[in-house]
Formats: sequence, C-alpha cells, structure tokens
Amino acid sequence: MEFKISKELIQELEQLIQTKNDQQLEVLLNDMHHADIAEVLDELDFEEATYIFKVLDSDKTAEILLELEDDLRENILKRLSPKEIAEELDELETNDAADIIAELSQEIKAEVISELQDVEHAKDIVDLLRYPEDTAGGIMHKELVKVNENWNVLTCVKEMRIQAENISRVHSIYVVDDEDRLKGRLSLKDLLTTSSRTPINDVYIRKLNSVNVDTEDVEVARIMQKYDLEAIPVVDELGRLVGRITIDDIVDVIKDEADEDYQLAAGISQDVEADDSIFDHTKARLPWLVLALLGGFISVRVLGLFEGAMLKHGNLFFFTPLIAAMAGNVGVQSSAIIVQGLANNTLSGSLFNRLIKEVALSLLNGVILATILFVGSHYLLNVEIIIGIIVTVALISVIIIASLIGTFIPLLLDKFGIDPALATGPFITTSNDICGILIYFSIAKMILGF
Amino acid sequence: MEFKISKELIQELEQLIQTKNDQQLEVLLNDMHHADIAEVLDELDFEEATYIFKVLDSDKTAEILLELEDDLRENILKRLSPKEIAEELDELETNDAADIIAELSQEIKAEVISELQDVEHAKDIVDLLRYPEDTAGGIMHKELVKVNENWNVLTCVKEMRIQAENISRVHSIYVVDDEDRLKGRLSLKDLLTTSSRTPINDVYIRKLNSVNVDTEDVEVARIMQKYDLEAIPVVDELGRLVGRITIDDIVDVIKDEADEDYQLAAGISQDVEADDSIFDHTKARLPWLVLALLGGFISVRVLGLFEGAMLKHGNLFFFTPLIAAMAGNVGVQSSAIIVQGLANNTLSGSLFNRLIKEVALSLLNGVILATILFVGSHYLLNVEIIIGIIVTVALISVIIIASLIGTFIPLLLDKFGIDPALATGPFITTSNDICGILIYFSIAKMILGF
Repeated sequence: MEFKISKELIQELEQLIQTKNDQQLEVLLNDMHHADIAEVLDELDFEEATYIFKVLDSDKTAEILLELEDDLRENILKRLSPKEIAEELDELETNDAADIIAELSQEIKAEVISELQDVEHAKDIVDLLRYPEDTAGGIMHKELVKVNENWNVLTCVKEMRIQAENISRVHSIYVVDDEDRLKGRLSLKDLLTTSSRTPINDVYIRKLNSVNVDTEDVEVARIMQKYDLEAIPVVDELGRLVGRITIDDIVDVIKDEADEDYQLAAGISQDVEADDSIFDHTKARLPWLVLALLGGFISVRVLGLFEGAMLKHGNLFFFTPLIAAMAGNVGVQSSAIIVQGLANNTLSGSLFNRLIKEVALSLLNGVILATILFVGSHYLLNVEIIIGIIVTVALISVIIIASLIGTFIPLLLDKFGIDPALATGPFITTSNDICGILIYFSIAKMILGF
Repeated sequence: MEFKISKELIQELEQLIQTKNDQQLEVLLNDMHHADIAEVLDELDFEEATYIFKVLDSDKTAEILLELEDDLRENILKRLSPKEIAEELDELETNDAADIIAELSQEIKAEVISELQDVEHAKDIVDLLRYPEDTAGGIMHKELVKVNENWNVLTCVKEMRIQAENISRVHSIYVVDDEDRLKGRLSLKDLLTTSSRTPINDVYIRKLNSVNVDTEDVEVARIMQKYDLEAIPVVDELGRLVGRITIDDIVDVIKDEADEDYQLAAGISQDVEADDSIFDHTKARLPWLVLALLGGFISVRVLGLFEGAMLKHGNLFFFTPLIAAMAGNVGVQSSAIIVQGLANNTLSGSLFNRLIKEVALSLLNGVILATILFVGSHYLLNVEIIIGIIVTVALISVIIIASLIGTFIPLLLDKFGIDPALATGPFITTSNDICGILIYFSIAKMILGF
C-alpha cells in the first residue's frame, strides 16, 4: 500500500510537462501525498520541478517544500518571486515557515516577510527567527491551544474549537493566568468527560514539565524521552507561555544528532549528504584528513628514530601497520562506548573505576589476541621466536594504552564542554597509531638493544 | 525545574532503608516521577533497590521497571515471585508487559502468565509474544480506540470514553466493519465538532496509512517519519485491526538503529553499554579485533614481499603507517556517506555516476593532501626528492582506490540484503590498509626497480 516511484510515472509527468497539460498534471498529483510528490520532484530536473510547483495549489506546494532535498528547495525558491514564496509560507506552521525563511538570502528575507498576508502569523514567524536553531526557541511552534485559568469548561471548549482550527494535533490544552504565565494543562479527554459549568481552575493539572526558550534542543529531546512526553510547552524568562515543541520535532533532533555523531566518528566534520556537491564534500572531509596526515608525519619521525634496527631486525617494520591498526581499532571501540554512554546518560560510577574496568577488559582481549598473534607469527608468518615475543608483548601493551586513551579523551572533552564525539574517528586512530608505534619499537629496543 | 540526583538524596534513602522506615520512604518517593526514581535506583545496590521496589505500590513500580537499566531490572525481577511480577505486569500496557515477559526465563514465563489477573490483558500479552521483536507486531500496543462504522457519533463518544480509560493517548479513533477490518479513522477534534446523531459512516476519513504485522520496525519508522504520523494502525493478513504503534515507540526504534550503526562503525558487533559486564564487552568487541588482526597478518606478508627494498630504501618503510592510515580514513568517510544515504533513503542516481563523483572528489582531496605531503616530506621529514615523489603519487592513488572501495562495498552489501553498516569501521580500514600498502610499495618498486 505504500507509494513507490516508478519510471512510468516519471515519464508520464515529463510528457505532461512538455505538452503543458496542466489539467492532467493536477489530476495525477492531487491524489498523491505531499511527501510522495516531493520524492517525485527530486527525480525531475529543476525546471520541471518548478513547473509542477507552479501548477499545484499553494496549500499543497507549501507542504511539499518542507519535504524536498535541500538543493532542490533552494533552486525552486530561487525561481519564485518573494510574493510567491510568501504565499507558500502563509500556509505553513510558524516554525516550518521560519526554517524556510532562515534559508533565504538577506535581501529576499525582508521582502518575503513584508509580503506575508496574515499579520499575526508574520509576527509569530519573525519572533521565531530570533532564536538560535539548536535551542527550544529555535524548534518550537507558535501553534498551541491555551485557555485562561478563570474560564469554565464551556468557554474553554468554544475557545479551543477556534484555536484548534489551525492546529493539526492538539495534544494538551495549556492553562495560563491573566499575564499569560503557564500554570498547568488540561487533556482533551478531561474536557470530554467534565460537565460544561466546571471552572477550569477546578480541573486542570498543575504539575507539568516545561522548558525555557534557551534550553538546548538535545536537552529538550532528553527530557521528552525520559518523561515520555508527546509535547512540551516552552516558556520565556518570565514564565510566559511562548510556544510548544511536539515529539515529531524531537524525532528530527534525535536523528540529526545521531547522524552528526556518526559522521564525526567517520571523520566528517559537517553535515553532508551523498548528493551534495563535491565542494561541500571536500569542505566536510578534508579537515580531518589533513589532521591525520600531520599525525602521519609524526609517525614517520617516530619510525625514523628506530632506523638502527633496520639492518639487523628489518622484519620488525613489517609489523608496524598491524600494531598501528590494532591500536586504532581498540581506541575507537573504547571511545565509542564512552561517547554513547555520555549521549544516553547511562554512565555511572567514578572515572577511576571506569579506567580500571577498561584495563581489565583490554587485558582480557589483549591476551586472547596476543595468543593468536604469537601462534600466527610462528606458523603463518615464520618470524623468529624473539620477534614473536616482542610483537606479542607490544600488542598487549598497545591495546591497554589505546583503550585508556580512547576512554579518557572523550571524558576529558566532555568535561571541557566539547562534543566528545570529536574524539572518535581520525583523532583517536591517529594518536593511537603514533602511541602504538612508539610503544612497539620501545619494547623491541629494550629487548633487542639495537 | 528538572530533577537532578544528589548525593544527599541517595544517602537519605540508604539511611531510611537501613532503619526500615517505609513510611518516610513512601513520602519521599511518591512525589517523584517514575523515571526519576528509576535513575535513583540505578545508583543503589540490588538489595536496596529491591527493598524500595517492594515498599512502593505496583502502579508506580510497574512504570519504574520499564525505565531501569537492563541488569538492574533483571536482578530485581529475580528477587520477585511470579505472582509479584504478574502484579507489575497487570499495571502495564500490553507491549511493555510483553517486552518484560520476553526477558524472563522459560519456566518463570509460564508461571507469570498464569498469575495475570486480567484475562483480556493476558490474552493480548500472549498474542504479542508471538511476533518477532523487530516487526510492527513486535512493537505495537494492543491498546487503541476503535468504533464500528455503523454506529453514530453519540454511541461512538460513549464507547470511546469506556475504551479510552486505559489509554494514555488517544491520537486517532479507528473505524472498523463488523468483521473488525480497518476501514478508516476519526479524529478526536472531529468528534468534538460533529452533532451526536451523525452516522460515523458519514464523517470518517477513509484514507489512512496502515502497516502489516510483519512489516519491519525500521520500515514502520520510515513510513511514520515520511508521512509525519503520530500513530499508525497495524493490520493482520486479513486486514483486521490488531494493534497500534505510536511515535514514542518509533523514537526508540530510531535511537536503537542509530546506536547500532554507530557501534558497527566503531567495530562493536552487538548492543553493549558502558556499564555492562566485561564478558559482554569482550563478546561485543573481540570479533572485529580478531578480524583486524588477521588482516594485519596479511599486511605483514605484503610488506615481506618488498623486503628487498629495505637495504637501499629503508625509509620507504617509515611511510607505511601514514599511507595505511590515510587509506583507512578515506575509506571510512566514503562508506559512512553511503551508509547514511542508504539509511535515510537519500541516494539517487546510478552507481556509475556515484563512483565517478567519488573519483573526482578523491582526486581533489588527494591532490591537496599530496601537496602537503610532498612539501612536508622535503622540509619536515628531510627525505630524498625521489622518495617524496613516490609517497606523493602513492597517496593520490591510495586515496582514490580507498574511496572507491569505501563507496562500493556498502552498496554491494546492501544489494545482497546485508546491513551496509557492517562495511564501515574495522572491515573497511583493514582492507584499505592492505590495499594501501600494496599500492604504495608497487609504485615504489616501479619507480625504484628494487
């Protein structure tokens, strides 16, 4: 029952666009969900997509606009006049409209805002533009249903019907005092089951969670998940109700945060998608690669220190990539566990206990891996026993140190208010490469005395 | 306004437990949110936590049970009789109860089920246990509000009040026919604004999304996100309404999926948290480390092939960790982009175009990095020009090949129905290490002819 894009559909649309058969286009698309139309437009070129966009009604296109890939949206907006853009925005919820305005260039922004028809709506949108993107203020809607604590249920239901008209999901009805300060909430269910003369003051629930406009979005996500909330009211410094955040906004925050951590772990420093331009990709990927390269310089210097071993024990050098790789892998594992623990708030116990546990763990893993390495070095790689002993001892030491670095660095970053996810990926692998090589050759030098 | 655990609170609780001051414990905890109590219990030892658990009412403890860390829940459940566990489950929604039963050992499971008081509830729970965890059936609730298409609004509101009593969030009212087949939905808002004599048949919305019991949970998440749904009905093979999934269930699916991808990228093969046992961690971390070690063996053999170069051009070997690390980092970046593109369904265009783009991108990055390397090798590392040229050429080649491997392998895995996230992390770094080293020394051999 779910929609699937077909080649036939795309061809049919292209045909209809070429023959400017607007009527048939409307018939074909009006029955489709806006999210599906957005998917279809992503498959067309910019001119074709804009053509369809202009054929459809603005209540439909406004919703489509939200679902489009960034570059297609940007290109379509460029092809619309400020007045046309304003027509789209008049159809949208305040925070969606504000998000789109935020993407526009400075000159057009002002023009679009001045073209908005609904003055209240325009005020709300401008209001939302003030808040940073990653705060409660930046993700909240202005749309909500609120009633005065001094009303009764009947007035309240009447008011609610008017207010709810523009709101797709009511969730809670918020109760405020004469100064608009948030006092509590009422559920729709309660309204349905209470007699109409009852004063609101007698039935509303006084206890409720709220967040401040400047609470960080990930913190809002954490609170809503922890207390299993579907919506949370947002208040300003004076405790006045200024907006509402719903769980679907939070789904986006959670997904973005997870994507960002994942990209950081992979050494990608800013949000970039497969279909973005080569230039965007270079900007996102190059910084960590440069850092890794500079780390590589250090590893070259470190290896140079042990040049003396080359004549007598050249095969020591064959093991450097193995040791470096193991150090990198172990470090990434340890740091990933810590980064997730910090993100999910599941770390308990002291730093000391955590490090002790990590040492015990890496000792266990180290001994198992070292045994495989020792046996393998003898039977598969045919190196002398003494080299086998050196790489084995080095591997255990390197694994312990690498896991300690992997555990310690994200905790340290977090302490200083830096995103610990920065520590995973190239940063940990590079520093562990260097440490690993240094430890390995130092042990070799101690044993062989070159 | 948010709850924060304090040392004082923990000490006070421990004091009250020691003096068996149950009354004071109840006073202290009854005002707290169950999610906060769960956090507090995680800080106590198992005996203390179980003590508190037995002091509190089962309507509170049931909710707490859901919020506890896995090992604490397991330990508390071990200390409760089947009858006590059944009392907890009677308070929970069907799918939460089913999740907890699924964690119990086989013998206790049957006993607990036989002790459930509410027969309807017990039937629903047993019903849910049949479905695999990662399907719509496995995450759905049995709790929902449904009305018959032949009723009128008045009957419907009455019925709804009865049914809604046990449901925390109504969202939609589903409309079914006499055979219980899903026909459409009604919104609470519509009910509030329609006269009570109107037949349901005249007002309900016939178009609605639904999923089948065996739809995968990530697919349900994708559909709900795409169409921005807060709840979706679940139907069986005959189209009968059997359950409902709400957005908060989906938040968990999204988070679990993201966590899993993140861990796979870090070379951790099963869900493990910082506070799990050393044994669990070893099980999760060792497999990829062993694989990486075996990959390391190959790199040793590959380097051995070029032993001849050691006498004349020993410093070539100083660059192996640098080349291997760059290959690994580039590969992980490329594969991460693909894995995310696949997960978010944002990949478009042909494989060929994607590979061409990746080549162009890595050529750009490669030239920039190679320039830094060439200059650095001369001024910082003081190697001969010819070695500088070799590592520079090798770096560009390695970056291109590594990014192609990183792009291609996840796409290939995906084609064969294997989770592409498996490709990131140790798998890509290890294979790229080996390829990188092979390419580097082959180029050196071609130029120097050793």
